Amino acid sequence: MHALKVSLGDRSYPVLVGRGMLGNADALAPFLPGRQALVVTNEIVGPLWLKALRAGLADFEVDVVVLPDGEDQKTLDTLGLIFDALAAGRFHRDATVVALGGGVIGDLAGFAAACWQRGVSFIQVPTTLLAQVDAAVGGKTAVNIPAGKNLVGAFHQPRCVVADIATLGTLGRKEYRAGFGEVIKYGLGLDAALFEWLEFNMPALLDQEPQALECVVYWCCSIKAQIVAGDEREAGRRALLNLGHSFAHAIEAATSFGVWLHGDAVAVGMVLASRLAVRMGMLAEKEAGRVEALISAAGLPTEPPPVGGHQLKRLMQMDKKISGGRMHFVLPTTVGASELCADVPEAELDAVLAAANPA
Amino acid sequence: MHALKVSLGDRSYPVLVGRGMLGNADALAPFLPGRQALVVTNEIVGPLWLKALRAGLADFEVDVVVLPDGEDQKTLDTLGLIFDALAAGRFHRDATVVALGGGVIGDLAGFAAACWQRGVSFIQVPTTLLAQVDAAVGGKTAVNIPAGKNLVGAFHQPRCVVADIATLGTLGRKEYRAGFGEVIKYGLGLDAALFEWLEFNMPALLDQEPQALECVVYWCCSIKAQIVAGDEREAGRRALLNLGHSFAHAIEAATSFGVWLHGDAVAVGMVLASRLAVRMGMLAEKEAGRVEALISAAGLPTEPPPVGGHQLKRLMQMDKKISGGRMHFVLPTTVGASELCADVPEAELDAVLAAANPA
Repeated sequence: MHALKVSLGDRSYPVLVGRGMLGNADALAPFLPGRQALVVTNEIVGPLWLKALRAGLADFEVDVVVLPDGEDQKTLDTLGLIFDALAAGRFHRDATVVALGGGVIGDLAGFAAACWQRGVSFIQVPTTLLAQVDAAVGGKTAVNIPAGKNLVGAFHQPRCVVADIATLGTLGRKEYRAGFGEVIKYGLGLDAALFEWLEFNMPALLDQEPQALECVVYWCCSIKAQIVAGDEREAGRRALLNLGHSFAHAIEAATSFGVWLHGDAVAVGMVLASRLAVRMGMLAEKEAGRVEALISAAGLPTEPPPVGGHQLKRLMQMDKKISGGRMHFVLPTTVGASELCADVPEAELDAVLAAANPA
Repeated sequence: MHALKVSLGDRSYPVLVGRGMLGNADALAPFLPGRQALVVTNEIVGPLWLKALRAGLADFEVDVVVLPDGEDQKTLDTLGLIFDALAAGRFHRDATVVALGGGVIGDLAGFAAACWQRGVSFIQVPTTLLAQVDAAVGGKTAVNIPAGKNLVGAFHQPRCVVADIATLGTLGRKEYRAGFGEVIKYGLGLDAALFEWLEFNMPALLDQEPQALECVVYWCCSIKAQIVAGDEREAGRRALLNLGHSFAHAIEAATSFGVWLHGDAVAVGMVLASRLAVRMGMLAEKEAGRVEALISAAGLPTEPPPVGGHQLKRLMQMDKKISGGRMHFVLPTTVGASELCADVPEAELDAVLAAANPA
């Protein structure tokens, strides 16, 4: 097991990366301030991993909420179901909410923990590659509303993140692959060495070779931990983690949240952001070619769904990454570096969307 | 106009107390970081004060949400309506939510501001006595769920509080009087001088004599500001502000939120807390008599509604003021002082509830 730390003063917390940690009571117990724990999971992950997690929480009073699977569950209504469970179990201020699942479960459970009694403790136990490398670290929680993704939420840091790569063995092929959308994002936007390592090791990763997997989860978490420690509320550098996400959120909203996996949408978003950067003279075409090649090698899509460019643009304008009425894009400037660009001409965006080849 | 400050580091903010400030653009404008403002108000307050507030926000893009009146509006569903308005108006991260109304509007608008895009700016313009002296200062926001009051919410400090006592002139008699529930709470729990001043000046206050009113609003806000500055998240002394509130929340929940005004319930709660303190030998009977006398002089109730003591106790056990499974009460030890008491024998509580004389 490897541990790293997200440094946020008295809200600092560890990210534990390893195999077979779920059933280990010593790993979890120090992070629960009281006796009560509510585990939030879904109907896919629960049957696979709840028993192990219960063993790790043997010394606590544990209630469980099992939700349906899918991004379309990330709503205010589902949040209400978690509050009902917290009320039914008489969960007090010293209770802990434990998220056992992917990014959807982490976002819902974390937001519920942020709001219950104006904030209780929270532990992330991510069981998807995407959640382990990205969503579970950093304290962003949210639900979707019809107008857009993650528009309603809270910054609420967990007390600890337990990324057990054993759980990735039970992940569906498509869900596993989607995680590489966020993995590649770290390489493209922030770390050329990671990108190159991925170019060499993608076959081993797709085969779930344990050492490669543990290495990549740890690597991504350490990048995220550094960024979050320096900019918790996304006033600056943390925004670079949104590379590809303006496009991705619009794709997800246009397809009603759930048809497209988030990681797949991020992959397409990175391709479109790269093309936009090439059009604006910020990125060499050869580098954009490496991006598409690596995304294809991971088995991820490179073109958006067949929805009109106008609709995607309208949805992007609703997304959060706007201030002063202007759209901001994170664009790559080379493999391993990116910057926030506030002055993207609308015509260039239109051209990129028009030139895409929907599947 | 008098100004005082809630000192919370880089989240410090002023509380402005005076007459005729709503239409003053210079008072509000410095506290809006962007161009967009969403005013949240209700169907009673809106027709009376929205025009004045709009004049004060003349330089901004203003949208308005007008909600029905009443504590029963403080729900997750109503919160969803505010989110819909924020989405429809494409409100970005630099937008400001302005609460124009009483405690219900402040709680809803503040919680919506806490959650929209994971947190936008927020201004409190309280128009009831209760909100001016208590609810608008301190950053507590929440909604009710069927299981109890304020169980879901956030700590989210406003950028500024504008307490314009001119707005109290349009307040209904019953709503105005209810505000003295919280006013008397400050005196009983924390400030003997305020309590004595109230004993002398209650007639002038009930006549809405402007100097007396401005004085009492400023006095209460300055007590609250000091307490909040020392204990924002209610880890210690801030809990003393909950004097009477365990009983009050149970009364409100037992009557489905809305039949009883919060201030009326707090008044009864203080009477019951005083009787409990007398039974436990913590408070002299004579002092408890002064409490009932002042509450009666304010025209406030001293007995709970005709719901069973068992039901009230069950609802109190669900309330937030519990840790380690034990009920905590704030009990007065004399006029002007109170303490958190973690060891109230259940039999004493039962006796107080059984001896009450429901109206």
